Amino acid sequence: MVKLFVIKIGGNIIDDDAKLASFLESFAAIEGKKILVHGGGKLATKLAAQLGIEQKMVEGRRITDAETLKIVTMVYAGYVNKNIVAQLQSFACNAIGLSGTDCDAILAHKRKHPVLDFGFAGDVDMVNTGLIKALLDQNIAIVFAPITHDGKGQLLNTNADTIAQEVATAMSREYEVQLVYSFEKSGVLRDVNDESSVIKRLDKPGYDKLKRGEVIFSGMLPKLDNAFAALNNGVKKVIIGKAEELDKLITGESGTTIINE
Amino acid sequence: MVKLFVIKIGGNIIDDDAKLASFLESFAAIEGKKILVHGGGKLATKLAAQLGIEQKMVEGRRITDAETLKIVTMVYAGYVNKNIVAQLQSFACNAIGLSGTDCDAILAHKRKHPVLDFGFAGDVDMVNTGLIKALLDQNIAIVFAPITHDGKGQLLNTNADTIAQEVATAMSREYEVQLVYSFEKSGVLRDVNDESSVIKRLDKPGYDKLKRGEVIFSGMLPKLDNAFAALNNGVKKVIIGKAEELDKLITGESGTTIINE
Repeated sequence: MVKLFVIKIGGNIIDDDAKLASFLESFAAIEGKKILVHGGGKLATKLAAQLGIEQKMVEGRRITDAETLKIVTMVYAGYVNKNIVAQLQSFACNAIGLSGTDCDAILAHKRKHPVLDFGFAGDVDMVNTGLIKALLDQNIAIVFAPITHDGKGQLLNTNADTIAQEVATAMSREYEVQLVYSFEKSGVLRDVNDESSVIKRLDKPGYDKLKRGEVIFSGMLPKLDNAFAALNNGVKKVIIGKAEELDKLITGESGTTIINE
Repeated sequence: MVKLFVIKIGGNIIDDDAKLASFLESFAAIEGKKILVHGGGKLATKLAAQLGIEQKMVEGRRITDAETLKIVTMVYAGYVNKNIVAQLQSFACNAIGLSGTDCDAILAHKRKHPVLDFGFAGDVDMVNTGLIKALLDQNIAIVFAPITHDGKGQLLNTNADTIAQEVATAMSREYEVQLVYSFEKSGVLRDVNDESSVIKRLDKPGYDKLKRGEVIFSGMLPKLDNAFAALNNGVKKVIIGKAEELDKLITGESGTTIINE
């Protein structure tokens, strides 16, 4: 099976021009098929503040009202996506920036929740694997903004970690997929204040133990839940670690390798 | 030769949800190959005002400083482009939203001018006809945001009328291209205050005469210059008219047909 890298870039890297450029240069240098999934860093929050639009977060997820949807669509699918693609082109990596609505790349439905109203938050129903494969076959790198749609004209905001997991899972029928969550930390840490305390390999019992001990950084929980979901659904390998070490993450030399039994 | 419609949607239509939806429904219903090029209406100007960024216009062109480039990238390539694509999908028209940086669709260079500095304004060097043809061959409608790039990592702001003309011209080697400039007016008017004074057919001597008489609306001049440039470079037909009458524009029943000798 042909290898495919699905790489999520997140956290503060998006907000740091120098770190982002260096990351994109490493991404461009990866040989073979590759997909990049990005969030928006703090830009969306900053723009909302400038425009006086209050942002509500529940369980680490942004509540997406109509005004917030407009902002994330502008920032994620516009500014961040097109700047990333332009930089990749400058590093001789032919790339295309997509949101879920382009060629129905990712269909979703508005999240239903018994109590909370997440607004225009989308839970993924379908990834257009045919489209993605056709682009990858032409050696085009795909850059996904975390905006999906319901097929009825409504854009939806979807967590970028989840997009990465859903795309990785869907493509695992066609490729040997390696999913990389890259961000500002060196990996899953035993001690959140000690960057040298990276857990090299983490399996499900180990994860459950960490959760019980409450030593794990709470922002890491959805990432790890996505990681195990990916492994349970056909993804070959999941690695979590520092964006600045992307070349060592994809080889498994750096970061935390998530293991399934 | 296979027919291709290149349709520019502009003016106030973008700002009017009901008119835009109706236009997109008509666009979706056009049979055959089609490309839509859009601007951003007043949204970019409005957002700039909300953020306290002063907008300068010279000769009908926005001066694109770094902050303005950020805004037009967000509004054009993000909000407007993705909402148009989502609506087209809801009308069963498979569409992809692109900016010039995606797969190097449109390469440009920063405008050089002996006196004025237009900032990050891009003049088109190359349209990626292979990419466009490959998408059209799969019956995908292409929706272009008027953002280009220089191949070296720099996004550029390019007039949407010009993008439409450049794309139409480049594609005329492969298709019988009909270029339609649709906006809020019924066509080229003899009397700018009288919507019933549409000039049905306009040739170059007629245009020169109109210009000498100074009866023509000044905002129309770049559109007409682009129209004649297109006809001089292989485009079969150019029609200018009201977006709400798109179905009659493409047949030539409404609007002004621009004629080359």
